[in-house]
Amino acid sequence: MSETKAKIDPRMTALLRDIGEKSRASARELAKVRPELKDRALLKMADDLVKKADFLLSENRKDIEEAENKGLQDSLIDRLTLTPERIEKIALGLRQVASLTDPVGEIVRMWTRPNGLRVGKMRIPLGVIGIIYESRPNVTADAAGLCIKSGNAVILRGGSETLRSNLAIGELLRDALRQCGLPQGAIQIIPVTERSAVLEMLKLDELIDLIIPRGGEGLIRFVTENSSIPVLKHYKGVCHVFVDESADLDMAESISINAKVQRPGVCNSMETMLVHEGIARDFLPRAVKAFTDKGVRIKGCAKTREIAPEVEEATENDWYEEYLDLIMNVKVVESLEKAVEHIEKYGSMHTETIVTENYKSSQDFINSVGSSTVMVNASTRFSDGFELGLGAEIGISTTKLHAFGPMGAQELTTTKFIVFGEGQIRQ
Amino acid sequence: MSETKAKIDPRMTALLRDIGEKSRASARELAKVRPELKDRALLKMADDLVKKADFLLSENRKDIEEAENKGLQDSLIDRLTLTPERIEKIALGLRQVASLTDPVGEIVRMWTRPNGLRVGKMRIPLGVIGIIYESRPNVTADAAGLCIKSGNAVILRGGSETLRSNLAIGELLRDALRQCGLPQGAIQIIPVTERSAVLEMLKLDELIDLIIPRGGEGLIRFVTENSSIPVLKHYKGVCHVFVDESADLDMAESISINAKVQRPGVCNSMETMLVHEGIARDFLPRAVKAFTDKGVRIKGCAKTREIAPEVEEATENDWYEEYLDLIMNVKVVESLEKAVEHIEKYGSMHTETIVTENYKSSQDFINSVGSSTVMVNASTRFSDGFELGLGAEIGISTTKLHAFGPMGAQELTTTKFIVFGEGQIRQ
Repeated sequence: MSETKAKIDPRMTALLRDIGEKSRASARELAKVRPELKDRALLKMADDLVKKADFLLSENRKDIEEAENKGLQDSLIDRLTLTPERIEKIALGLRQVASLTDPVGEIVRMWTRPNGLRVGKMRIPLGVIGIIYESRPNVTADAAGLCIKSGNAVILRGGSETLRSNLAIGELLRDALRQCGLPQGAIQIIPVTERSAVLEMLKLDELIDLIIPRGGEGLIRFVTENSSIPVLKHYKGVCHVFVDESADLDMAESISINAKVQRPGVCNSMETMLVHEGIARDFLPRAVKAFTDKGVRIKGCAKTREIAPEVEEATENDWYEEYLDLIMNVKVVESLEKAVEHIEKYGSMHTETIVTENYKSSQDFINSVGSSTVMVNASTRFSDGFELGLGAEIGISTTKLHAFGPMGAQELTTTKFIVFGEGQIRQ
Repeated sequence: MSETKAKIDPRMTALLRDIGEKSRASARELAKVRPELKDRALLKMADDLVKKADFLLSENRKDIEEAENKGLQDSLIDRLTLTPERIEKIALGLRQVASLTDPVGEIVRMWTRPNGLRVGKMRIPLGVIGIIYESRPNVTADAAGLCIKSGNAVILRGGSETLRSNLAIGELLRDALRQCGLPQGAIQIIPVTERSAVLEMLKLDELIDLIIPRGGEGLIRFVTENSSIPVLKHYKGVCHVFVDESADLDMAESISINAKVQRPGVCNSMETMLVHEGIARDFLPRAVKAFTDKGVRIKGCAKTREIAPEVEEATENDWYEEYLDLIMNVKVVESLEKAVEHIEKYGSMHTETIVTENYKSSQDFINSVGSSTVMVNASTRFSDGFELGLGAEIGISTTKLHAFGPMGAQELTTTKFIVFGEGQIRQ
């Protein structure tokens, strides 16, 4: 780490400091802006992205050509490709963010002290947020939109393979800010691809209030290890479905299938199904068949394989695995407590669900599972900001400080105390 | 830093890891405990501290003797001294914490999605909290009490000069936990004085969720620079009183005097008074006299000295100063905006108050000052957890992430999402 740092170019230090200072100044201005002005700018951004789609597509084309020349995988090229439909979807996202309630200025609580002081907590923006992400250029607009909505300035650092696309999107967004009388510096795209730019960014703890990395585990670890700024982390999603003894078997099958196969490549899909031993003989044969029919490869514990011998043997490491694919584990457990113990040991504090018809089991599961989202009789796939009703999502935190679970606009704010007196002094 | 780390003793690593693991296991247990059990333990702690005061006083006596032999300053020795009255006060603090509403399990909000899913946010403990503090042995009980109340395990590391007192207090608190059927490991005192113990503690990012340093700027910087665990920081309190053009002059005098002299050595006392130029000629002569009568040394800007020539000249550095003493700065400003700019530049985001009879000024000040506590017509001295109605205080955060301003039991919790479904799956 110190070696990497030693190589840093002083021009890079100056570039990032300049970006940080403009961001800080813009954040001060933006914090005082009325909700309607921010929403107007967000709608203008949405309109302009669609109107100027040709410009975006031609810049994106250059990124794609470079990626093809470099021989990047097709799946990666697909991720970085913009299409008119994808641009429409980005614009729709910005319009939805505009329609959300503005979190800034909300008085969360207010109370009166015995001496007559009225004390409240008021929501205010965090200030400057740095987003470090990979590939998908839609993140540029999605993240910028949520930051502006919540009154924050944002510094965006996307993947090197989408630099031109990100700069083009940034240009349109900044232009919309300017035309609506808001500070352009509130959205800035780091215009260089060197990794040292990230290291310089992560040093600006007096100018940036929060770093959100979005991408693979490698990116997140790199950011965490090198940042002097607080980082909101989301390592991985090892999500569980626990089929309780009293589960409705049709519901258990429908929820676990949905949790695994509806979109296996995302963090809120199920990796391990836990089955109460009291119901295993009834449920496992039909479940294994249903999963196999959907093309899912199943690894299981000894008890699972006793009931369904076609299941492969799971190794100790498999229980920790985030497959992100049509592969899953199945384990038979003696009790709800054992299911919770398994989740505590192997889980990633993301999302777990119980399928049960029993009142006590539902309460016990909700109360004793410490993950960021705990569900009863619902698919783990609902664990994202939009589906849970936050309107949009900037990421999912699997660490507890500041925010835990899906983060929307409100999670990009903090609160200050406000106090109204009539001349009170302390005795 | 790496040099310091290289010196670390492997036995110290093992000791701290053991403490951390016990703490994590106890936190899991404590998170599930009913409020009444925690409150019973807190009341038992309070009773036992008073009942066994002789034991505490005799252990404290040994700390005092050692401090005297080392030639410590009288003021420091006073800070570490326990008396029967001080023990009563510690017990009273624990009883007050017991009487607070339990934050754990509170459903902060709950809403229903179009598909019928009921989604809520439930308060849960953070987990394991590390407190690193100096001198005053009362912090041992105060901090432990708030952590237990909020369902967290706590690892306490006090100053080396109070180790015996802290261990004695810890012994009583742990015994009360045990007698009430709660895990003793939920309160642990680091039993060694070496600084390397702190470094080892700050590495345990998988076992400790939050570090709160309480003490001087040096301690806080040391902790921040060496911690891989999130730190809630409170650097300093450079608090301002702004006397607006429309202020009631009697109120302005009473509030600013109270803010400066009622207890000058604490972070929420005033360091700089800003006076609107429209009222400076009326207010400054009487204010300067009132402060001088109280023995306050005043440094001022050129305009202040024009009106009150007896005031010393303030240097640029003085405006940043946290005097913690009967010394203050006075500056005449052209407008409320200029006052806010001064606060943004020289302040520490702690506490600022405006004295005004004007509605617009009061709103503008509340909205545009970004500090953690912003007041109208009240003394800055009210800026602490107890006075603002949080019941007790674990510290004051002057950084925005997770908590900003005075922190009570609620700030030692986070929220998880809970979801109640009826078999919903994602389309």
